[in-house]
Amino acid sequence: MFDQILKQLSKFIILDKNEEKIFLSKLIFKKYDKNELILKEGQICRYSYFINRGCFRYFYNVNSQENTGQFFFENGWYTDFSSFLTQNPTRQNIQALENSEILLLSSKSLNQLYSEIPKFERFGRLIAENAFLGIQKKSEMLENLTAKERYLNLIKERPKVFERIPQHYIASYLGIKPPSLSRIRRQISNKMIS
Amino acid sequence: MFDQILKQLSKFIILDKNEEKIFLSKLIFKKYDKNELILKEGQICRYSYFINRGCFRYFYNVNSQENTGQFFFENGWYTDFSSFLTQNPTRQNIQALENSEILLLSSKSLNQLYSEIPKFERFGRLIAENAFLGIQKKSEMLENLTAKERYLNLIKERPKVFERIPQHYIASYLGIKPPSLSRIRRQISNKMIS
Repeated sequence: MFDQILKQLSKFIILDKNEEKIFLSKLIFKKYDKNELILKEGQICRYSYFINRGCFRYFYNVNSQENTGQFFFENGWYTDFSSFLTQNPTRQNIQALENSEILLLSSKSLNQLYSEIPKFERFGRLIAENAFLGIQKKSEMLENLTAKERYLNLIKERPKVFERIPQHYIASYLGIKPPSLSRIRRQISNKMIS
Repeated sequence: MFDQILKQLSKFIILDKNEEKIFLSKLIFKKYDKNELILKEGQICRYSYFINRGCFRYFYNVNSQENTGQFFFENGWYTDFSSFLTQNPTRQNIQALENSEILLLSSKSLNQLYSEIPKFERFGRLIAENAFLGIQKKSEMLENLTAKERYLNLIKERPKVFERIPQHYIASYLGIKPPSLSRIRRQISNKMIS
C-alpha cells in the first residue's frame, strides 16, 4: 500500500527506516467511488492527498456551471493549497473520476513532520514549487492561448487525459464550450485526413 | 540597504549573525529606471528579486498586446519561478514602473544557501507557498469573476495598485479592455453619487 508513496517521496528526500516509520504512521488510507466528492466547497481542506489508484479533478461552481481546474492521476499529490495552508473554507470541489484509493496526510501531521524531521521542509518546498509550476502553466494557458492551441497543447503534453477523462470535463478544463471542442477536434482530424 | 530584506526574512526564519553574513554576501544591489526591463522574454531568469524601493510588473506579449500578470511593491520578492526553477527561457517581461532599487539573489546562491544553511529550505518552502497562493488567486479571479467583480475586488484588497499604477496596466492585469474599465469606473461612481 505504501510502495508508491515511498518511491515518490524518495525523489525529494531520503529517509532512514525510523523516519519512514514516523511518516507512514501519519497516513490515512481511503477509498472513493467513481464520481464521489472528497472535498466540497465551503469545507476546510485539512489533507494533502496522494493518489495510489484512480484519478481526480477539482472544479469550481461558477454561475451554475462547473469550471474544471485540473486533473490528477496515480502517484500525484494534490491539495487545495489555499485552504490547506490558510485553513479557510475551500472554493474547490475535488471529485474522484474513477474508483480510487488515496493516502491522506493532514496539515497537522505535515507540520509535525516539519518539526520532527526538518528535511521534510525540503519536501514541502519542492511540492510547493511543483504546485506553483502547475498552476502557472494552467493560468498562462488560459490567458495566452487560443482554444485550438490549448487543445493541441494538452494532446501533446498529457495524452493520458484523453484516454481517461470524459470530453465535457476536458472542455471545461480548457475553458471552452463542448460544441467548440467538438468543432476543433473535427477541424484537426479533417486536416490530418486531407 | 539590508534592513528591509533582513526584516522580511525574519518573518520566515531566524538567522544568527554568521548566517546573516553568509546570506548578505550573496546579494547583488541594482538600480533600475522607470520603465526599464529587468528581464526580457527569451532570457533565463537567474535571480530572485527583492524590492527595496519602487514597483514592478510582469507581463506577457500576446498577439502584439501586453498581458500584465502581477504588480509588486517594496518588501516583496519576485521571480519568474518557472524559468528560475527550470532554467528554461522565460516568457515573462519584468519591468520597473518607478525608479527602483532591488536586491538580487541568484538561483545558484539560493541553492548554496539550501546546502549551507538548511533552514533556508523553510524560507524556500514559505516563499513557494506564498507564490502559489498569489498565482492561484489571480487565476481564480480570471476564471471565475466578472470584469466588474475583478475591479471591485482589486480596489478592496490592494488599493495601493490604484495609487501607483497607470490605468491601462490595471486594465491589462484585470483582463479587460481600457474602455471597459473606464465604463465600470463610471458606473460605480454614478451609483455612489445617486
